[in-house]
Amino acid sequence: MVTEPLVYLNGCMLPASRAHLKIYDAGVVMGATVTEQARTFHQRLYKLGEHLDRLFCSLRCASLDIDLSKADLAAISRELVAHHSGLLAGTAELGLIQFVTAGEYTAYAASTDPPPHPGPTVCVHTFPLPFERWARSLQTGAHLVTPSIRHVPPQCYDPKMKYRSRMHFYLADKEAQRVDPAATALLLDLHGNVTETAAANLLIMERGTLVSPPVVHILSGISRATLIDLAGKLGIPFCERALQVCDTQNADEAFLTSTPYCLMPVTKVNGTAIGNGQPGPVFRRLMQAWSEEVGLDIERQILEGAKRRCEEVTS
Amino acid sequence: MVTEPLVYLNGCMLPASRAHLKIYDAGVVMGATVTEQARTFHQRLYKLGEHLDRLFCSLRCASLDIDLSKADLAAISRELVAHHSGLLAGTAELGLIQFVTAGEYTAYAASTDPPPHPGPTVCVHTFPLPFERWARSLQTGAHLVTPSIRHVPPQCYDPKMKYRSRMHFYLADKEAQRVDPAATALLLDLHGNVTETAAANLLIMERGTLVSPPVVHILSGISRATLIDLAGKLGIPFCERALQVCDTQNADEAFLTSTPYCLMPVTKVNGTAIGNGQPGPVFRRLMQAWSEEVGLDIERQILEGAKRRCEEVTS
Amino acid sequence: MVTEPLVYLNGCMLPASRAHLKIYDAGVVMGATVTEQARTFHQRLYKLGEHLDRLFCSLRCASLDIDLSKADLAAISRELVAHHSGLLAGTAELGLIQFVTAGEYTAYAASTDPPPHPGPTVCVHTFPLPFERWARSLQTGAHLVTPSIRHVPPQCYDPKMKYRSRMHFYLADKEAQRVDPAATALLLDLHGNVTETAAANLLIMERGTLVSPPVVHILSGISRATLIDLAGKLGIPFCERALQVCDTQNADEAFLTSTPYCLMPVTKVNGTAIGNGQPGPVFRRLMQAWSEEVGLDIERQILEGAKRRCEEVTS
Amino acid sequence: MVTEPLVYLNGCMLPASRAHLKIYDAGVVMGATVTEQARTFHQRLYKLGEHLDRLFCSLRCASLDIDLSKADLAAISRELVAHHSGLLAGTAELGLIQFVTAGEYTAYAASTDPPPHPGPTVCVHTFPLPFERWARSLQTGAHLVTPSIRHVPPQCYDPKMKYRSRMHFYLADKEAQRVDPAATALLLDLHGNVTETAAANLLIMERGTLVSPPVVHILSGISRATLIDLAGKLGIPFCERALQVCDTQNADEAFLTSTPYCLMPVTKVNGTAIGNGQPGPVFRRLMQAWSEEVGLDIERQILEGAKRRCEEVTS
Amino acid sequence: MVTEPLVYLNGCMLPASRAHLKIYDAGVVMGATVTEQARTFHQRLYKLGEHLDRLFCSLRCASLDIDLSKADLAAISRELVAHHSGLLAGTAELGLIQFVTAGEYTAYAASTDPPPHPGPTVCVHTFPLPFERWARSLQTGAHLVTPSIRHVPPQCYDPKMKYRSRMHFYLADKEAQRVDPAATALLLDLHGNVTETAAANLLIMERGTLVSPPVVHILSGISRATLIDLAGKLGIPFCERALQVCDTQNADEAFLTSTPYCLMPVTKVNGTAIGNGQPGPVFRRLMQAWSEEVGLDIERQILEGAKRRCEEVTS
Amino acid sequence: MVTEPLVYLNGCMLPASRAHLKIYDAGVVMGATVTEQARTFHQRLYKLGEHLDRLFCSLRCASLDIDLSKADLAAISRELVAHHSGLLAGTAELGLIQFVTAGEYTAYAASTDPPPHPGPTVCVHTFPLPFERWARSLQTGAHLVTPSIRHVPPQCYDPKMKYRSRMHFYLADKEAQRVDPAATALLLDLHGNVTETAAANLLIMERGTLVSPPVVHILSGISRATLIDLAGKLGIPFCERALQVCDTQNADEAFLTSTPYCLMPVTKVNGTAIGNGQPGPVFRRLMQAWSEEVGLDIERQILEGAKRRCEEVTS
Repeated sequence: MVTEPLVYLNGCMLPASRAHLKIYDAGVVMGATVTEQARTFHQRLYKLGEHLDRLFCSLRCASLDIDLSKADLAAISRELVAHHSGLLAGTAELGLIQFVTAGEYTAYAASTDPPPHPGPTVCVHTFPLPFERWARSLQTGAHLVTPSIRHVPPQCYDPKMKYRSRMHFYLADKEAQRVDPAATALLLDLHGNVTETAAANLLIMERGTLVSPPVVHILSGISRATLIDLAGKLGIPFCERALQVCDTQNADEAFLTSTPYCLMPVTKVNGTAIGNGQPGPVFRRLMQAWSEEVGLDIERQILEGAKRRCEEVTS
Repeated sequence: MVTEPLVYLNGCMLPASRAHLKIYDAGVVMGATVTEQARTFHQRLYKLGEHLDRLFCSLRCASLDIDLSKADLAAISRELVAHHSGLLAGTAELGLIQFVTAGEYTAYAASTDPPPHPGPTVCVHTFPLPFERWARSLQTGAHLVTPSIRHVPPQCYDPKMKYRSRMHFYLADKEAQRVDPAATALLLDLHGNVTETAAANLLIMERGTLVSPPVVHILSGISRATLIDLAGKLGIPFCERALQVCDTQNADEAFLTSTPYCLMPVTKVNGTAIGNGQPGPVFRRLMQAWSEEVGLDIERQILEGAKRRCEEVTS
Repeated sequence: MVTEPLVYLNGCMLPASRAHLKIYDAGVVMGATVTEQARTFHQRLYKLGEHLDRLFCSLRCASLDIDLSKADLAAISRELVAHHSGLLAGTAELGLIQFVTAGEYTAYAASTDPPPHPGPTVCVHTFPLPFERWARSLQTGAHLVTPSIRHVPPQCYDPKMKYRSRMHFYLADKEAQRVDPAATALLLDLHGNVTETAAANLLIMERGTLVSPPVVHILSGISRATLIDLAGKLGIPFCERALQVCDTQNADEAFLTSTPYCLMPVTKVNGTAIGNGQPGPVFRRLMQAWSEEVGLDIERQILEGAKRRCEEVTS
Repeated sequence: MVTEPLVYLNGCMLPASRAHLKIYDAGVVMGATVTEQARTFHQRLYKLGEHLDRLFCSLRCASLDIDLSKADLAAISRELVAHHSGLLAGTAELGLIQFVTAGEYTAYAASTDPPPHPGPTVCVHTFPLPFERWARSLQTGAHLVTPSIRHVPPQCYDPKMKYRSRMHFYLADKEAQRVDPAATALLLDLHGNVTETAAANLLIMERGTLVSPPVVHILSGISRATLIDLAGKLGIPFCERALQVCDTQNADEAFLTSTPYCLMPVTKVNGTAIGNGQPGPVFRRLMQAWSEEVGLDIERQILEGAKRRCEEVTS
Repeated sequence: MVTEPLVYLNGCMLPASRAHLKIYDAGVVMGATVTEQARTFHQRLYKLGEHLDRLFCSLRCASLDIDLSKADLAAISRELVAHHSGLLAGTAELGLIQFVTAGEYTAYAASTDPPPHPGPTVCVHTFPLPFERWARSLQTGAHLVTPSIRHVPPQCYDPKMKYRSRMHFYLADKEAQRVDPAATALLLDLHGNVTETAAANLLIMERGTLVSPPVVHILSGISRATLIDLAGKLGIPFCERALQVCDTQNADEAFLTSTPYCLMPVTKVNGTAIGNGQPGPVFRRLMQAWSEEVGLDIERQILEGAKRRCEEVTS
Repeated sequence: MVTEPLVYLNGCMLPASRAHLKIYDAGVVMGATVTEQARTFHQRLYKLGEHLDRLFCSLRCASLDIDLSKADLAAISRELVAHHSGLLAGTAELGLIQFVTAGEYTAYAASTDPPPHPGPTVCVHTFPLPFERWARSLQTGAHLVTPSIRHVPPQCYDPKMKYRSRMHFYLADKEAQRVDPAATALLLDLHGNVTETAAANLLIMERGTLVSPPVVHILSGISRATLIDLAGKLGIPFCERALQVCDTQNADEAFLTSTPYCLMPVTKVNGTAIGNGQPGPVFRRLMQAWSEEVGLDIERQILEGAKRRCEEVTS
């Protein structure tokens, strides 16, 4: 039995240490890749169906045809998770990534290479959620900085398609971290409206209402949908509206929402404290509701997981 | 001795069949990659210095620091070419690719993985120029189609940095090929001005002058600079000016210029024939001047190389 | 009695064969024209009041003053329809066009011309609805293609004013038909959002809701209003939201709505099938509701009318 | 012999009083029309070749094919001018208009109509130049006002194609005339740069240099080219540069240039006097050079022609 | 006792005649100032809390820290009003202005100047409401004109922060008054949508609904909020939507709302009458509801106050 | 005799300590102000004529009429400088500021105020150049940071008019200083092109050519014109071109130029070193040429002046 995690790659289940991309795969050469990221709770995949639905939307937008159905990908995903979970302590949770590239760009192939894999490159892999990355921000709040670089507009490629040509996010985060090493870039669109970070949607609380930028310039996040749904159950109204930096700075609370950590308070935008500069009561209520839905204390799991990892490293 | 091409990857010279990227390299995960592509004439690298200068400009824009100097990369590049040339017939020419990604994105690493390579991923590799891809267009002219998708504007990421987050080019080419399977996408900028194709700069002849879009929205191509230089020697004036589709359709001639094939006539834009619909006299003069500079007949080499490849395949 | 249709032109009722515009009318010289198009059901004008209301809005936006009231134009319109209907078989239906130009541009008048008609040119005319144009698309669905040309933005002239300076629609349709001869152009606005076709509004079904682009960049269509109203009666919620190409491609269904044919299914956008690529169930329900409202089976009338016309031509 | 002017229309030479467009010609229905306007000096057409060249550029941009060559259109144009000149006093001059529409839009045809003319509608006609329209502005200078309406950007349709979908010019002039009944609208582009008026190009004198907006957002006027050429002969340097309203207000002089009157001084922009508020010395020099080129005093001809017309009307 | 109004300036209560700004205050040098304007009814401040809340939002957006709390500013404001009211007849009402600049720009200080006041400049002052300015427009309706100058977009500075860098409003009003001396400029945003005037929000009645441009490009006015609230109590639905000039011209009614006069009918936009060109019934109902809320007839107070002022001047 | 500097204000020469603006001057209330800043060399005003020419251009753009001629303002300016120089050591140099506001905004006047000064407020004042502010940057180079806030576009107000509604510059500098307390904001325009800083023009050296952004989005600086002129005398070619951040980062050298300090090297843009991170040879040559033109060593004067000031403060 394989004692390392498995990776699905173009029809094969490989040990993780043997899963690679060719240096001339279109994903490497052109960033021509769509992707999804899911996670487990209690080592079971959460909202896998929603992620697969969106993956197939992204594939359709990119005119990429794969010979796997949603059911195939679901089975593969569950198998990978089951195998990897078996290698880990019961307290760990996994992230799961599915990605599809436009296939091998054979013009760059070396002459001695074997014949290319036909069609798109399909890969599914798993990794232990790195709780230690979020523990600190979860307690004191994330810091956002708006860089001078702008988000790519939908007429170039639509952020509703989850793609991997993300150079602007990389440059934006570098720019934000020159202001504050702990900061994440909150990109503005070409008109100066607030959009999203590289890996999360932003929402704010404004006079009792949960407000999000409209989906035109952002990923239509599955965690975002969950959050809106949870808010509705708590009686918190929701609306979409073009938001500017001033709105986020004058919000009562602000959040990031993303698959791996669910919800994160934001306590600073461009150096200005949000509210009293601490995670707020709506954050607490929403996190608790989310925890109830998934049957575990999300925040505690992250904090304890981070502590364990820290102990492993130092021991 | 290794009987297959070598690839430089993060300090090692590997046989091509063993050169791979990790599935969680930042180049795969985010397209956070800058690159260069050079080629040989008579199996010697052409304008390597210019390509290295531009690579280091791109690295500076991306705030990527590598521990190799231009001289190091030049030596590596020449070694790879020498080795690969030794494996080929004397009539072949090589393309050379250098790329640098932001390194491994360790948050996605599997728990059993070895420690990551620190810092950016640096790769240099070679491939035989696929002459058969250009032979036909070289004789009858390339067809361009302007898709509805727009080029990413410089305030997102600057096309003067040669990057690989190129999803929009991929989508644009798909859109162009729905119009004409032989077509390449000529992207417009957000204001509707003509920019470039995925792999080439566009220039036109207009009343005796060679005209290019300004460098704001395009790669400042090394082949483009060579072309302008050759035109100057032939007494053809040059200017930069914002160009619209109408200008290209009413041009006397139009060209694509790119490292691997140097110069290509354009004979159709959005279905409208340019000039008389055939490669024109200025194309001939410029291609001849370029051939003289590099000491071989570029067009004939491509046509004969393509013919050879065709014979290999069918034999 | 006149045995050909009549045309109202600047105060006169003329036989259709004698109704012309001067070659220097402002409608010809500058496209300075506002217009309306209505149709009959059972040979009676449908929603004539709504069309007249919008015509007078357009006139106000264009600062055009005519010396006819809405009642005058209604009477003229009904008279033209009654006369033309008398010349046709009972199964035919009529289209009715009203247009007002800025009048004769006398600077271009020939010296021997009679004195110009003062003030705007007002014309009302009728024509048999060409059912044969829509029969095929009604059965298999319309194909839409987004061209590279963009819709004129409201700060140039507002699409809510129904005008005839429509060169961009003409060019856009040519561009779309190079992709697919059966396609209609779906224009994007300057930000890449979906707007409308030359003659119809677009709406989509998305997770049970009827969604339209906001009226900023589109004509506020009377058929569109009817559709929204019918949807409401069927319990289908409606909202407006900026839509991108991805949204239309991932819609459950998509429709065009326009005065002459009421409702048309869309089955392809940029080559991607919508839903299962066939007219969908919501289309059927809405078309049936519309048919009930007007007291005849709209779809069958078009299909049978087209068949008759086809037989006339071949016989 | 015909004692009224002739008009060429779709292959026929008709008396002017019998030349009309169908009410459903695409030029009427959609403004889908390209056009040229030339004029005579000494009753001979001036720069006819340049106008025909540009007409064929416009046709190519609009994908309109006509079955007439440039030589055919030149012969027709000269014949119309010769005939019309024979009917006029020797002091008159003619304007000549060529226009091509996308043809009859048969969907709107009445059932009793004769078969449509196939292909585009081609029309050429002449008219006596209305000198009285320009006499006053020529003496005291034109007034320009920038309206809130913007010029249509090239990504909708390119102003380098001389088209007739000009609703925005009509609305802009109305807006300008609310400020000053003698004013003409100077349209700004979407970025607020100065472009052109409905019928003329704008140029300014700035510290000894003749400056024009770049051709991106304006018609590449034949009179503009003549003016630049004349300026060169007088030793006045020329450049293109994006101009804003401030630049025109602080110019030493400003001009309009257009086929029928050649050159017109501008003395006011948005109520601010240009220079000392009078036609300036460079205007005088350029007008004189132009007069010498065409062999008559252009300004005097306009003023005397206007006086004659005035006397005719009052006698 | 001081017999002239007092002004609060940087910690001191000064007689109005001695309250000045240094010529090198940042408010003078850079317009780096945020502000609020409130008013009294029955000589008591109306919605002071809302104004202070917004002032502190503006301060946060501008990163200006002052050492006064909201309570401090409220106390100062009330004291100024009480003192000034004591100097006036009982029929007068006061305007109250609070402004905070970025402090003294000491680089421009003269060498002999005393040490600068540290930190921001804080000023509060009062003035009798100049009813005579509004009486006429209140009776016959305000006239709006859209100038060619555009509103500053939020990515430069956000209109939701009440700032005093208002050069564009000044230039816009000058432009509007060239059309109509009684007109106020209604600025368009960069996309041609309607925004606001220098001192008021615009709202329209459209088919029974009160419609406002979205708050992205406008001040989130306190009077606007009051108006929406009053409308709700009268059963008038409200929505936000991007509005163009055509929409305002075809509105049933249009209003300006602003702190000093509360509500003003708009009867002309760009020379086109709104509705029947008279203040409409919804204006009357809203003005009455507002009057009831504040316990006096707002319109009558303005008209009578204006009449008194007129009599003072002429007597 | 007055022993403090004098200030010209609305017709009076006042001691500096008595020169103030009313709190309701339009310059305070609306930032409706145009301005100039000149300086002395050897205590004589440098290029006063050019500054006055530009002031009158700005006045014309703002439609502000003052009753002073250029000669009047020149005389006033010289008188102020002569007086202030007499109060200073011979080593000091003066800055001179002229500004004109739209006058008193009387609607905000207190009832007891004296009658307002009619017409615009005109002020001229002087101050010792604060050499200590520039000494450090002159030696080690200025640091620039591009903030997320964008420069106000010319269609709002044209940067070629030197105005004081500069809130965006204030906010931009705050944003830049969060990255690097020593940094100055380099604003981008709405398209992401480099423009200017709050008080200086930027130029770069690129392959031997001095390059500036085009004047569309920047002040047409008098120091900038001097620099271009000096470069020409040294044989350094000059051109204007849209520049992006990448261009500045890859420049050989970069400079700021501004009236008070003439020329400043830039050594960092967004944290990336320019060239070798030190002031470069072209900077030295240009500074020397400038020093020769004005007859003193500009850099040494600044460094020694700063040292003196430092000694004064610490002694």
